[in-house]
Amino acid sequence: MKTLPFALVALAALPAPLAARTPPAPPPTVEQRADSALKNDRLAWGFVEGITTEVGPRQAGTEAEARGRQWAMAWLRAQGFANVADEPFQMDTWVPGTIHRAEVVSPFAQPLVIQPLGDSAATPAGGLTAQVVMFRTVDELRAAPAGSLAGKIAYISHAMTPTQDGSHYGFAGPARWVGAGIAASKGALATVIKSIGTDWHRNPHTGGTSFPAGVAPTPAGALSLPDAANLERMFARAGGRPITLRLEMNPQRLGQTTSGNVVGEIVGRDPSLPPVLVACHIDSWWNGTGAFDDAAGCGIVAAAARHATAGAQPLRTVRVLMAGAEEVGLHGSVAYSAAHRDQPIAVGLESDFGADRIYRFNSNFRAANRALHDRIAAALVLFGVSTSDEVATGGADINIARDQRTAIIDLQQDGTRYFDLHHTPDDTLDKIDPAQLRQNVAIWTTVIGILANERETILPAGQAPGSGGSR
Amino acid sequence: MKTLPFALVALAALPAPLAARTPPAPPPTVEQRADSALKNDRLAWGFVEGITTEVGPRQAGTEAEARGRQWAMAWLRAQGFANVADEPFQMDTWVPGTIHRAEVVSPFAQPLVIQPLGDSAATPAGGLTAQVVMFRTVDELRAAPAGSLAGKIAYISHAMTPTQDGSHYGFAGPARWVGAGIAASKGALATVIKSIGTDWHRNPHTGGTSFPAGVAPTPAGALSLPDAANLERMFARAGGRPITLRLEMNPQRLGQTTSGNVVGEIVGRDPSLPPVLVACHIDSWWNGTGAFDDAAGCGIVAAAARHATAGAQPLRTVRVLMAGAEEVGLHGSVAYSAAHRDQPIAVGLESDFGADRIYRFNSNFRAANRALHDRIAAALVLFGVSTSDEVATGGADINIARDQRTAIIDLQQDGTRYFDLHHTPDDTLDKIDPAQLRQNVAIWTTVIGILANERETILPAGQAPGSGGSR
Repeated sequence: MKTLPFALVALAALPAPLAARTPPAPPPTVEQRADSALKNDRLAWGFVEGITTEVGPRQAGTEAEARGRQWAMAWLRAQGFANVADEPFQMDTWVPGTIHRAEVVSPFAQPLVIQPLGDSAATPAGGLTAQVVMFRTVDELRAAPAGSLAGKIAYISHAMTPTQDGSHYGFAGPARWVGAGIAASKGALATVIKSIGTDWHRNPHTGGTSFPAGVAPTPAGALSLPDAANLERMFARAGGRPITLRLEMNPQRLGQTTSGNVVGEIVGRDPSLPPVLVACHIDSWWNGTGAFDDAAGCGIVAAAARHATAGAQPLRTVRVLMAGAEEVGLHGSVAYSAAHRDQPIAVGLESDFGADRIYRFNSNFRAANRALHDRIAAALVLFGVSTSDEVATGGADINIARDQRTAIIDLQQDGTRYFDLHHTPDDTLDKIDPAQLRQNVAIWTTVIGILANERETILPAGQAPGSGGSR
Repeated sequence: MKTLPFALVALAALPAPLAARTPPAPPPTVEQRADSALKNDRLAWGFVEGITTEVGPRQAGTEAEARGRQWAMAWLRAQGFANVADEPFQMDTWVPGTIHRAEVVSPFAQPLVIQPLGDSAATPAGGLTAQVVMFRTVDELRAAPAGSLAGKIAYISHAMTPTQDGSHYGFAGPARWVGAGIAASKGALATVIKSIGTDWHRNPHTGGTSFPAGVAPTPAGALSLPDAANLERMFARAGGRPITLRLEMNPQRLGQTTSGNVVGEIVGRDPSLPPVLVACHIDSWWNGTGAFDDAAGCGIVAAAARHATAGAQPLRTVRVLMAGAEEVGLHGSVAYSAAHRDQPIAVGLESDFGADRIYRFNSNFRAANRALHDRIAAALVLFGVSTSDEVATGGADINIARDQRTAIIDLQQDGTRYFDLHHTPDDTLDKIDPAQLRQNVAIWTTVIGILANERETILPAGQAPGSGGSR
């Protein structure tokens, strides 16, 4: 990252005395900045290419995530961000191990491709072998009698369809989020699920699972979609014969280790005004390089913060938060809120849904900030972005905005192919469409450019002036 | 396969006395049979679904391939084929082992997804670590000085583009076919190649490699395309620092084991006429379930043989050959030719290029058989199949046709996405488009229906009558 590819950025990086001797042209407008980003941005791509190539996977709480933070801090400093820091926190860390094997033993012997779910226990060394009981839905599993899975492996299927807004994650996700815990509570030795995903490649979708208090974690893994379909065909063809599966996985718990949040700022002219917080997360699952989830989000928000402010100090500070340990339980977002809850922010927004086209803008602004909402909406029409009365709620990386009850903006990305890639080995740089990535950067440049120069107090609906950050 | 989904097949399966008491309607024409297959065929899909689900991967020379032969013979018998047999042969067998790991150690530590190439040696237990030397093409590797790779790992890239006729396999394939042998001859400890493929998933494309006489095999593996791109970006970003890779793989040689060819026949009315030989291969690489390569081909030719002849015994015998051990060196095709070379065949044709649409028909027929060529071509126009003056040469599974210098037909499938799947874990049932599969079956039904009822001697250009099978 030794070269600064943008003229604007080069201008911003000039030492102050030289800038003083050579009066700059009037700074570009927000629209000009966004237009330039749409055509020319290389910063966001550079961030994603750099961290996925030079660091790779960044499993939360591991040394790889720490290298990711170091890399991101060096990048932010090279781009002229101020107050760049790693804000550490402790977390209970799980790692996947190196053995991830499943095979049907009978009646149709063949290997299946599996990966462990986050918080999965290990199998005994050498694996475990047991009959599989199939549940087509989580509700079918919930209905199974107590103790009925003793000595068995539960298999949970589910239906999932690609959706533009990602809503089928909530529809299908429980099979992963709670399935293993329910099965374990009914005596299952282990749980295997159909991946929560919409692709047809032999790359399982990992992600966190959970076990209720008092239920000992069991081995839990996700089959790739083709392997899950194969297992289900076996049930259809077995004529009632039992399907026996051998499972071997060696994830581990490391106890308490260090993770951290990376922060950096474009410092504003008026430090009395609360900053604009733009967020993403720096960690990824171990199995991919975390390009879509969420190096892209970090590249987008940081590149846009840079473009929106280059050559003209904004009124408000723009603060970038690259949260640590999002994937395994939002630890970084929680830690950031705990550490900074008494420092009010003006508005929070995050990019954490891939790198495909943004198509909708929403806010939770109060009526008194309607003009600001409308100004942003009008500027985004140029990029094919609509708005609606839906109330923005933010995402995983901006707990602080919900904890402080601040204004929130959602810039909704197209998620149609997000769950083809989410939490899989296939989450790699090549999946990112540079043109759509630049559309994101241009829109974020617009929104940050407007917000960071807004003098009015920005508050959500139902929030009295001055109460931001106080509860 | 207990149900016979086709009315025609049910008719064929009637015991003769009953058929004699109930005079059947006139048998359907070839066109009617093909039309019915296009709309209704379930046999080909049933074959592919069955063998991929109930057997799975069928690595040549292993017990899994033997199970595949048993499964295929049971299926052929259930469909009414006669003279179903497993013709065994011995082969020198390689298996991939269970450890397939690569990781960049420095300067950009991260794991890479790799699988071994057929005939790869194992690394020492615990792996080997060495500097990587990149070659952009096989020719660059060939130009490397003798001994220059001592102590190094060779990495070979190459360019490959999806092509409808699959011609880029010949263009890009040498990186796999001969790269490791060339590198080993120059002292390389191991060779890693960019997969010979056209997809962007983290599923390496395996396949056979080779080592020249006197050159000891070394470890040799294929990176997935995204991992190869990542490694190449590392070279671009390392600023001359060495890239060090750790490689651990444990393939094994099992010595001589048994493979075999599965054969079955629809017996013709005139045993003095040479049969029509329709071929495919029953083995697959270990990493996928061999749906596209080549369960589909076996399903297509066997289903078509059935449809073309059901309810009306053909003039010539139609012989199905499901060759063993194709992937690892065409052993089955060679063994079949050695065993049957003195039993002339009329014409040979094979299906071994996936399950996508057929778009061209070619033959190598002599001028005296031009009318037959034209009759087939005219019948296939209905399915969007063209013909040309290109001379058919057949494929891997019909060595006997070349050894006997018989007539050959090529039914060219669309290979645009073939090398997305070829030799990868992703070669699974879900990749098959049922409508395109049925188009294949309909076309094969047409061609077999015409050939099996052709009384004229069929010979290739340049071949005198009566010399078929004599040299």
